[in-house]
Amino acid sequence: MRTFLPPVLLPGLLLRLLLRLWVGLPLCWLSPAQAGADAVTPAMAAQADRLLQSALEKNIAWDVVRSLTTEVGPRLAGTPAEARARRWAVARLRAMGLDNPREEPFQVPLWRRGAERAEILTPFPQPLVVTALGGSTATGPEGVRGTVVSFPSLDALRAAAPGSLAGKVVFIDEPMARSRDGSGYARAVGKRRAAAYLAAERGAVAALIRSVGTSSHRFAHAGQMRRVLEEGESGVPTAALAAPDADQLRRALGYGEPVQVSLLLTPRSLPPAASGNVVAEIVGREAPQEIVLVGAHLDSWDLGTGAVDDGAGVGIVLGALDVLLRELPRPPRRTIRVVLFGAEEVGLVGAWAYLQRHAASLPQHIIGTESDFGAGDIWRFDSRVGEAQLATIDAMAALLRPLGIERGNNAARGGPDMKYLREAGMPVVGLLQDGSDYFDLHHTPDDTLDKIAPGDLDQNVAAYAAFLYLAAESEAYFR
Amino acid sequence: MRTFLPPVLLPGLLLRLLLRLWVGLPLCWLSPAQAGADAVTPAMAAQADRLLQSALEKNIAWDVVRSLTTEVGPRLAGTPAEARARRWAVARLRAMGLDNPREEPFQVPLWRRGAERAEILTPFPQPLVVTALGGSTATGPEGVRGTVVSFPSLDALRAAAPGSLAGKVVFIDEPMARSRDGSGYARAVGKRRAAAYLAAERGAVAALIRSVGTSSHRFAHAGQMRRVLEEGESGVPTAALAAPDADQLRRALGYGEPVQVSLLLTPRSLPPAASGNVVAEIVGREAPQEIVLVGAHLDSWDLGTGAVDDGAGVGIVLGALDVLLRELPRPPRRTIRVVLFGAEEVGLVGAWAYLQRHAASLPQHIIGTESDFGAGDIWRFDSRVGEAQLATIDAMAALLRPLGIERGNNAARGGPDMKYLREAGMPVVGLLQDGSDYFDLHHTPDDTLDKIAPGDLDQNVAAYAAFLYLAAESEAYFR
Repeated sequence: MRTFLPPVLLPGLLLRLLLRLWVGLPLCWLSPAQAGADAVTPAMAAQADRLLQSALEKNIAWDVVRSLTTEVGPRLAGTPAEARARRWAVARLRAMGLDNPREEPFQVPLWRRGAERAEILTPFPQPLVVTALGGSTATGPEGVRGTVVSFPSLDALRAAAPGSLAGKVVFIDEPMARSRDGSGYARAVGKRRAAAYLAAERGAVAALIRSVGTSSHRFAHAGQMRRVLEEGESGVPTAALAAPDADQLRRALGYGEPVQVSLLLTPRSLPPAASGNVVAEIVGREAPQEIVLVGAHLDSWDLGTGAVDDGAGVGIVLGALDVLLRELPRPPRRTIRVVLFGAEEVGLVGAWAYLQRHAASLPQHIIGTESDFGAGDIWRFDSRVGEAQLATIDAMAALLRPLGIERGNNAARGGPDMKYLREAGMPVVGLLQDGSDYFDLHHTPDDTLDKIAPGDLDQNVAAYAAFLYLAAESEAYFR
Repeated sequence: MRTFLPPVLLPGLLLRLLLRLWVGLPLCWLSPAQAGADAVTPAMAAQADRLLQSALEKNIAWDVVRSLTTEVGPRLAGTPAEARARRWAVARLRAMGLDNPREEPFQVPLWRRGAERAEILTPFPQPLVVTALGGSTATGPEGVRGTVVSFPSLDALRAAAPGSLAGKVVFIDEPMARSRDGSGYARAVGKRRAAAYLAAERGAVAALIRSVGTSSHRFAHAGQMRRVLEEGESGVPTAALAAPDADQLRRALGYGEPVQVSLLLTPRSLPPAASGNVVAEIVGREAPQEIVLVGAHLDSWDLGTGAVDDGAGVGIVLGALDVLLRELPRPPRRTIRVVLFGAEEVGLVGAWAYLQRHAASLPQHIIGTESDFGAGDIWRFDSRVGEAQLATIDAMAALLRPLGIERGNNAARGGPDMKYLREAGMPVVGLLQDGSDYFDLHHTPDDTLDKIAPGDLDQNVAAYAAFLYLAAESEAYFR
């Protein structure tokens, strides 16, 4: 099978090239406005307040999620379902009245799930609920079997000597902490990314991880493994166990006898397939070349219908744009561009494609953000802007305070698909949602529309509508 | 394939025979004690109170559930797993110090789940989460496909004319009401029992039902179809949809276009296989021939590990017996018999086998009850006894009031496996548990140990220990 070189292999090289081009541009016409709170005029503040009210009273966000999750459902990157989602998005953006709705195609490595089955063979025969991690190799149709060796953390597995686990099945039994800011994920996801490779290096025949998630229900959480491989590196077949099944395996091991399991996984890695971003604008009235970017991602994992990840983000962003289109008496000064990214889940492939395609206009990307953390209310407004711009951001943040949103720090990440743009110097903000329950559903079959009630997204829509208007109407540059 | 005549076909005939035998017995020595509260002496009340305290302080119930669900796991009637559960139970009862732990074998029709897969084909292609109902016929390896016709209730399907649904897939979209007493189940279960046959009679190729349950998660609820068939009656392949998938199908139908689905089910109906009840006693010190019966069921559905259904009941009953064995200074007057029924889920086959085997001693079955409603606290004490016995029952109920248990009515059912004994005239009580959440887990893969916290069962154990002691120490007959 041919080896596909994923775009994330290249960022170091290309980024340096892009940054060099950028530095060479005449930037004088982009010089910042006088920094300070007066970049938000009283008229702008009044308009922002009207947008908040309008968004809280009525918006289309939930209906967008309903439509996407019903009419498309699961939409794994590179599949016909993801292509249907792009067509759905272009039609929806056009119907809303946005300018230039279009697909921006790219190619993505395609991986498709097959059969998946795990069992404790001895001493207590019974099935376990598993799902293959994205990118996992297959076991072959006969499956594999081996004695389980449990590790309390990825670090503990890392400490095992190469070759020391010959013929074994690795089990990383590391739980994830629940928190409002989702900080438990950053730590827990390490085992999802690396388990297959560390297990292979130590001679294991397969790896199982406790799902990266906080659900207490019997759902295994899918998710992508690390795709950037060292020369000659390869991974063993690797699956996530539902939390109750990880508990069960832990209990079985607690009897002190050898625990033998079987694992069958038959996913396929296929040639690169078509994916794409969907892009549209509200073209600015005075500085149409200046772009305020707002994103969400259109693809989802294959097990659920992607309601909270990231149907909610799509709904929030489209809801906010609809409020702007309905309520603003004229377009804002700058262009607001929406990007519904493709192939986020499988490694930010759409984000990379966007950076490549829009390299020339990067300096005109004034500020950006993405909604990709479910349906919880926003509780904090972080930024990543130049020091001189903090007073302007503070003035914007003050206008969001009626929504229960506090001003946060200046170390925002801006959402996953802002990664490359942020690294290339684009200022970002982060409208941080309460993610306490997000990882109960994240990447599971249970990520379905019923988990979001009509109205749940309204506070988010209000905050996005106000922020996008203020950033696009403002004369401030945020660098 | 040979037709197996299930035991539930026979109750009318045999019951009449048994009742005739019974009426012929000399019953004079079973004459009721003086009815009234003085059947519960002050010494008995004091002992019951000590049992309550002891049970609330320490009992083995949760550990019993842990052990059964870990060491055996799922234990469908007639499978080797159910046989392991019987061996587990005999060993556990022996270790606890009960008298005469033994298996009482019988045969059960064996049905085993195969592949199960459903999809919306048009207009919105996507998979649906389903599980075959117990006893469903198979679709064949190619599956079936058809246009969905939705009915809001079983009655609505019943109203459709025979032959009117030729080539269609029936969808019964009837939800179940959540309630403390589980009363929504009795109504909702009708569609599970009858859908396959009504759909067949009307020409349909398959049937889907909204799961009988209250879960909002993406679990289809398994469960047995009606097994008593009319001459020539047969059913179409029938599966339950998870609630989110029933919602999705309803939404898809709401667009007004024909919705075509496919269904693949490959379960197998196999020759009858070994099942059995597990029985043991605390032999009474004065009237060992008189039996106070307490039950739970040992089998479970195959998707979960049967923690709340009915590991909890097994834990509660064994926990109560352990309290009695540890705390009573001498055995009670009468024998307390525990029956861990086999093959409850597939149609009360173990309950019927018990009735057949113990027909001769039916008159000495003084009173009985079963724990089979999960892990919620008991809130009401119902009875079904002779009018003259109500004062005695009231006196017992008063002793349970400190546990938050109110006195209920005299129309108790006593639990599913008491059905035939109750119908044959055995008095029963019902210690009614709060079942508000029970049908979130019932018959799903999510019925696992983590849903029960240590301590959750203690109030139940206390109530069962006190009731069993009082009934076995009492001189009251309850008829």
